[in-house]
Amino acid sequence: MTEVRALWFQEDTLFLLDQRRLPQEVRVLRLQRVEEVAQAIRDMAVRGAPAIGVAASYGMVLASREGRWDPASAGALLSSTRPTAHDLFAGVSHVAKVWQDGGDPKAAAEEYRQRVVGECERIGRVGAPLLGPGARILTHCNAGALATVEWGTALAPIRLAHRAGRDPFVWVDETRPLLQGSRLTAWELQQEGIRHSVIADNAAGYFLQKGDVDLVLVGADRITRSGDFANKIGTYEKAVLARENGVPFYVAAPWSTFDLKMAEGREIPVEERSSEEVTQFQGTPSAPPGSPGRNPAFDITPARFVTGFITPDGILAPSELARVLRERSRDGG
Amino acid sequence: MTEVRALWFQEDTLFLLDQRRLPQEVRVLRLQRVEEVAQAIRDMAVRGAPAIGVAASYGMVLASREGRWDPASAGALLSSTRPTAHDLFAGVSHVAKVWQDGGDPKAAAEEYRQRVVGECERIGRVGAPLLGPGARILTHCNAGALATVEWGTALAPIRLAHRAGRDPFVWVDETRPLLQGSRLTAWELQQEGIRHSVIADNAAGYFLQKGDVDLVLVGADRITRSGDFANKIGTYEKAVLARENGVPFYVAAPWSTFDLKMAEGREIPVEERSSEEVTQFQGTPSAPPGSPGRNPAFDITPARFVTGFITPDGILAPSELARVLRERSRDGG
Repeated sequence: MTEVRALWFQEDTLFLLDQRRLPQEVRVLRLQRVEEVAQAIRDMAVRGAPAIGVAASYGMVLASREGRWDPASAGALLSSTRPTAHDLFAGVSHVAKVWQDGGDPKAAAEEYRQRVVGECERIGRVGAPLLGPGARILTHCNAGALATVEWGTALAPIRLAHRAGRDPFVWVDETRPLLQGSRLTAWELQQEGIRHSVIADNAAGYFLQKGDVDLVLVGADRITRSGDFANKIGTYEKAVLARENGVPFYVAAPWSTFDLKMAEGREIPVEERSSEEVTQFQGTPSAPPGSPGRNPAFDITPARFVTGFITPDGILAPSELARVLRERSRDGG
Repeated sequence: MTEVRALWFQEDTLFLLDQRRLPQEVRVLRLQRVEEVAQAIRDMAVRGAPAIGVAASYGMVLASREGRWDPASAGALLSSTRPTAHDLFAGVSHVAKVWQDGGDPKAAAEEYRQRVVGECERIGRVGAPLLGPGARILTHCNAGALATVEWGTALAPIRLAHRAGRDPFVWVDETRPLLQGSRLTAWELQQEGIRHSVIADNAAGYFLQKGDVDLVLVGADRITRSGDFANKIGTYEKAVLARENGVPFYVAAPWSTFDLKMAEGREIPVEERSSEEVTQFQGTPSAPPGSPGRNPAFDITPARFVTGFITPDGILAPSELARVLRERSRDGG
C-alpha cells in the first residue's frame, strides 16, 4: 500500500484528489453523479490512464444507481470525455458488461480497481531488478500512484527499489504544459523520501548526453499490438534522445493500457486540448495576448525506440508483444 | 531597420528594454554605471548572445567615463557576468583595445553595434532563400531583434521572407524555464504580423514527426571551430529530433559568436542558473516546497547535427568552418 491514493469509493460517493490543485492544495472532490465523474475526467481533476479507467468504472456505478441511465448511455458519456487513454474504455466496458448481465456494478468496479492496483504492484516487482544501487532514472509526466490509484506504473519499480534500500535517484521532467512532473511526480517522490531533481523538459537531453541517466522509465496511455504507444506529449522526444545516447527506454503499464484492437501507433487518436494550457502558466499569461498556440496532449512513440514493456507478468520486447497479447486474448485475459 | 530594438545609447545612458518583463510590461531601464550593466546582463534583463555583446561594449563606455576603472578591470567585471556566450567577450575586448590605445570607447562601441546589426541583416539576406513560400520553421528560444539589437539571427531570414511576401509560419518553442519563446519570440513575430503558433517544448518532436516542419532555425551562444555549438537548453533535443525526422537544421550567427580559440563543444563552459527558475514561474511555485531542481541554461549540439551555419557571408557546412575561420583570422576579420 502506498501513501498516496488518487481516489476511493465510499457510501455512494467517489472521492477524488483534485490533481489540478496539487501540490499547492490538497483538495478532495466528492462526486455522486456520473456527469460529475465525466466532467472530472475531462477537466483532468483525475488523470493518468489507469486512474481514469478506475474513475470511469465508479462513474458507471453511480449511473447504475440513478434510474435514467443504462449501461450503453452511461458508457457513451464517460467514453466521450477523452480519446487517447485505452484504460478509460477498459474500465467502462468491464462494468457495463456486468451491469448489462444483471450483476452488481459496484462489485465489478471494485474488482477492476483491485486488479489495476494489483497489476501495478506486480509491475513494481517485475521492474525493480532493472534498478541497481543508486540507479539514475529519467521519467516524464506522472506515472505514479496519482495516475494509477496506488503504486504507479513507472514509479512502482522505483518505489520498490527505494524500499529495498537501493537509493534510486529520479530526474523529473517538469512536463509542460500541465506540469504533472514538477507538481505530481516530485510531490509523490517527496512523500516517500526518494531522491529526485526537477528539470525543464528541455534539459533531459543534456543530462542524457552527459551520461547522467541510467535508464528512462515512463508510463503509457495506449499501447498497440506493434508496440507503438501513446503517452504524454514529449515522451517521443525522450525516446529518440535515449536511443541517440545508448540509454535503455522502458514503458510500464497494466494490461488495461494494451489495445488489442489496434495494430499501429498511427491509428491512436491524439487529443488536442485548449491552447491556453500553453499560452498560460497556472493562470498567468506567458505569451502575448492574441498569440495562437497548439496543444497536442500526447505523442506516439514508435516501437523501435522501446527496450522493453514492463507488464505485470514480465518484461516484453516489442517483438514479443503481438504473440503475448494474442495468447492473453485467447485465454480470456 | 526593425520595429523592435533591444537597447540604445544616448547622452551617456544605456537604455535597455527589460526582457524579464516582456510581453506583459514594456519597461525601459536607464543604466549609467558599468556595475548596472553587469547586473542587467547577469539578471538577464538583456539576453541573447549578440545583444549581450553590444550591451557589454556600452558598459565599457560607461566605465571609461568614471575615473576609477581601467580597460582590464571593467572588462573583467563584465566578462564575469555569464560564461557561455562568446559575444560577451568579443564586445568587451573590442572596446577594451581601443580604450587601451587611447582611442574613443564610445566610437568603438558604436562601431561594434553597427557591425552586429549589419551582420544580422546580411544573415537575413543569406538565409531568406532557404524559406520557400509558406515555409514552416521551428525555432527555439529567442534569436530575434531582442537577442541581437535589431533583425535577429534566426529571425532575420524569417523577417526578410515575410517582407518578400512569402508568408512564412513559425512554430515557437515556449522555451522553459524562462519562456523566451512564448514571451519574446511570439511578441516579436506579432509586432511584424508573422504567422506563428506557440507550443510546449515537448511538442516540437510531435510536429517534426508529423511532417509539419520544413526546417529548424536557431541562434547560438558560442560556436567552436569544429562546428559544435552552445545554445539555449533544449536546442540539442531539437537537433537530434530534426535529424531523426530528416528535417534540415540551421544555425544563424554573426562572426562574434564564433570562438576561434575553441576546438570542440566539450570545452564550452555551460552556465547553471538558480533552480528556482525551474521550480517556479514568475514567482508562482510549480514544484512542492523543498523539491530540488537542476537548471543548466545551455546545451551543446555536436556539429554532425548541423545542416549549415548561416553567417553574414554565406552558408557554411560544419566541415568548411575551420578553414573559413582560419582565413578570416589571417585577414584580421
